[in-house]
Amino acid sequence: MIYTLTTNPAIDMNIQSKKIEPSVVNRVENSKYFPNGKGINVSLVLKHYGINSKVLGFFGGFTGKFIKDELEAQEFEVIPVWIDHPTRINVFINDEKDEFKLVDKGPFIPQFQQKELLNVIRNLTDCKYLVISGSLPQGIDDSYYDKIFNICKEKNIDIIIDISSTKLKELLKFKPLLIKPNDEEIKDIFGIELKNELDVKKTFIKLHEMGARNVLLTMGDKGLYFSDGKKIHYCNAPKIKFLSSACAGDAALGAFLSEWIVEKDLELALKKASATGANVAESEGLGSLSNVENYIKQLKVRGVY
Amino acid sequence: MIYTLTTNPAIDMNIQSKKIEPSVVNRVENSKYFPNGKGINVSLVLKHYGINSKVLGFFGGFTGKFIKDELEAQEFEVIPVWIDHPTRINVFINDEKDEFKLVDKGPFIPQFQQKELLNVIRNLTDCKYLVISGSLPQGIDDSYYDKIFNICKEKNIDIIIDISSTKLKELLKFKPLLIKPNDEEIKDIFGIELKNELDVKKTFIKLHEMGARNVLLTMGDKGLYFSDGKKIHYCNAPKIKFLSSACAGDAALGAFLSEWIVEKDLELALKKASATGANVAESEGLGSLSNVENYIKQLKVRGVY
Repeated sequence: MIYTLTTNPAIDMNIQSKKIEPSVVNRVENSKYFPNGKGINVSLVLKHYGINSKVLGFFGGFTGKFIKDELEAQEFEVIPVWIDHPTRINVFINDEKDEFKLVDKGPFIPQFQQKELLNVIRNLTDCKYLVISGSLPQGIDDSYYDKIFNICKEKNIDIIIDISSTKLKELLKFKPLLIKPNDEEIKDIFGIELKNELDVKKTFIKLHEMGARNVLLTMGDKGLYFSDGKKIHYCNAPKIKFLSSACAGDAALGAFLSEWIVEKDLELALKKASATGANVAESEGLGSLSNVENYIKQLKVRGVY
Repeated sequence: MIYTLTTNPAIDMNIQSKKIEPSVVNRVENSKYFPNGKGINVSLVLKHYGINSKVLGFFGGFTGKFIKDELEAQEFEVIPVWIDHPTRINVFINDEKDEFKLVDKGPFIPQFQQKELLNVIRNLTDCKYLVISGSLPQGIDDSYYDKIFNICKEKNIDIIIDISSTKLKELLKFKPLLIKPNDEEIKDIFGIELKNELDVKKTFIKLHEMGARNVLLTMGDKGLYFSDGKKIHYCNAPKIKFLSSACAGDAALGAFLSEWIVEKDLELALKKASATGANVAESEGLGSLSNVENYIKQLKVRGVY
């Protein structure tokens, strides 16, 4: 069983407004609410491709309840650690010209609830893979990752990790099964600017040396690379009308895992990841993923030597 | 027992943001959520002054559940008609310079749920007063008020009504116990501009002729008038640092009712209404009403002849 962990989930609230002016009342209609959070997105995409996963995380208040209920309605098993403050709502206002993004830091997580989540992981009996995705909420410092990795090591749980923190560098010593940086994160975390394929190859060597067993490197419209330490593969990206990169990386990871973990078909896994990421990048939220099949036909996977 | 009816309740979501710029991520912290709706505000203020009331309205989804739970935590009895779509969230963003108000129209109410609410009112056994406050949601037209008024007439329920619709004019024939227009509504609904006390006196005569048994006329910082058809009273308003008129009228009405219905102390009722409205006008939401007692001392009620 795959578990995903989202320590700072969110409701995305999408508001369409003809205008957004100060002081006056701006009338809007039918705001929409979606469960969000990077780990949750991975679970949703896995489910789309027929793979079950269970959802871990901190949830609070009426907003946390909403996310749990929505996921359960989609037949996910959610194992929440309940906190006192409501799960955040991130507000996205589109005024037909611009998008205004108001992203809440989310609630503070007290020590005892941090420990509760570690105990939940410690007591899992059917967890083979843990996907850790997204930033840590207020009150939790980077050393929390070490605690999770140590528990997983004891329990033989393979970790897939997708975080933007420089902490990732340190965590590679735990030999995670898979990391999924994008080109920006490679720059921010490892200080390497990826200007050409030689840079990519050198980066993979470095990441494997540091401990990563497999690396999925997503580069937006420039496609994606995968390395298992023996061979590197590249898959191009379909042409799309770009809307937003939000959720695209999570979706690519979910799509990749849905093939790679289960069927071990690497070529299809890479095409599916690329097509899914692109389809999400042209959609609101995760969208319907209805173009994926069509996009896959446009894609080619080649070896990189 | 007093009942309040809120056909289009809302959660008010208050966001503090250092900036609000398009395209970039604007980071915010600790958004706050309050149950809102004009009838609900009346109930909250009645409760603040020790008077119980029960809450009627259409509620939907996780947001409707939040309002119900919050009110029940404050020991209100809530009698919801559940609808399929979530109760709206109105978003108020303060960027330390301006306030941006995004007010949702709220969910559409289908016929059968409109009927359900009428049945709820029809089956009330302990309702002596019904406070109808605020606009009708999508899907309900003005004739709905006639239906409610007819049920209340049969059941000998006295109606207190505070709506901004021109429909108010027509409803006066039902002889509501009390109406609470403000000066703007007198202009918009009855076409009378209140320039001096003579205008006020003429307006009261007209409103009583049309059927209003009692009228509480609020005029913001210019104070408030009350007429029972025999005598007119005026109460001044305390000086405040004005923040927002939101909720101030509802609060004044709740404060007035808390004395007038129960103790019949008209002078105190007027002072309390004026002081409470002012205190709310200088506060976020309903605020704490902590200045009311102090303000009451500054107020004087006089007869208008």
